[in-house]
Amino acid sequence: MCEHKNTFVNSFKQFLNNIHPISDQDFNAGFRLFQEVNLLKGEYFVQQGEICNQIGFVVEGTLRIFSSNQSGKEVTTCFCTKHKTTTSYKSFIRQEPSEFAIQTIENAQLLTITSGDIEKLYQENEAWSIIGRRLMEREYLVMEGYAVMLNRESAKEKYKKMIQDMPGIIQVAKIEDLASYLGVTRRTLTRIREEILHER
Amino acid sequence: MCEHKNTFVNSFKQFLNNIHPISDQDFNAGFRLFQEVNLLKGEYFVQQGEICNQIGFVVEGTLRIFSSNQSGKEVTTCFCTKHKTTTSYKSFIRQEPSEFAIQTIENAQLLTITSGDIEKLYQENEAWSIIGRRLMEREYLVMEGYAVMLNRESAKEKYKKMIQDMPGIIQVAKIEDLASYLGVTRRTLTRIREEILHER
Repeated sequence: MCEHKNTFVNSFKQFLNNIHPISDQDFNAGFRLFQEVNLLKGEYFVQQGEICNQIGFVVEGTLRIFSSNQSGKEVTTCFCTKHKTTTSYKSFIRQEPSEFAIQTIENAQLLTITSGDIEKLYQENEAWSIIGRRLMEREYLVMEGYAVMLNRESAKEKYKKMIQDMPGIIQVAKIEDLASYLGVTRRTLTRIREEILHER
Repeated sequence: MCEHKNTFVNSFKQFLNNIHPISDQDFNAGFRLFQEVNLLKGEYFVQQGEICNQIGFVVEGTLRIFSSNQSGKEVTTCFCTKHKTTTSYKSFIRQEPSEFAIQTIENAQLLTITSGDIEKLYQENEAWSIIGRRLMEREYLVMEGYAVMLNRESAKEKYKKMIQDMPGIIQVAKIEDLASYLGVTRRTLTRIREEILHER
């Protein structure tokens, strides 16, 4: 196994271990079902309307989750960064067409597994099953934090929270996608950025 | 066992069975750990700042999840209705003070289990462990739907979606709590209600 491969296997194992302790044997039982996928900037992990049959662990890079309405207006609802998972959960869980597209906003490297394989893995291996539940708990808390931020915070508070929680995103995402994620207009976000710059 | 008790045990079993098939033996292994809790309208399931040590299955009634800021302004982020679960997940999972309060908005009957007991149950019983993961998946999808609604829909679309998804809530919740949940002002919600009335 080359050194590069070794590094990303270890980073994935560390990610799982942080969720729940997993032995080498249990890790290997699952890891053989994962595929390495490399996507260039702008490529899609899943298209809107397609069934999302895979969940991916982001080894490197960033992806954006968004939906387009009939007039082509895009609403961004998530950014998936390094060492996070990415999928269109509703589509993945229910095997129905995805409401969302997932596209890279910089070159990305993923470890992916199909819904069939992970479901089998959960049934056969207790450590992976616990990891699966804990992972959903984490994803729930991230989504709850997002909903609460959308409903409770002012535009400026939302942007400040974003700088704090996802500092890397500001560097790689387009301003209109950041604004859309925060539920504010591009103009508002530009104004807020200038205000914050002057506060420093 | 009296008839009333029988009815709500069956309704809980049905709820679990809809998530994942569970045998009588597995059901009973878990059910003995649940407590029946009755709350009058206005009573709290958990107070903001308290550690939420329990998850509840709502047999009857409705609860509201909200947080208050320093000036006492309340933001409602969830309504928990009959045959749904209720807890302050972050507090429950991490055993830290709850950001939210959970209060009944009509008399409620719950089946509750402590975080310690459910964690043990997940470890000892595979059926309950699968149910736990599926339950988190469901809760995630509900929260994702809420976040997407907040970010993507117009005020009127949001209210129409609410009438469709949670028709009972409109009857029991205060208009300011409905408005807060939808992220609109009370005045906007009143206007929308009148518009919808005239459309019929």
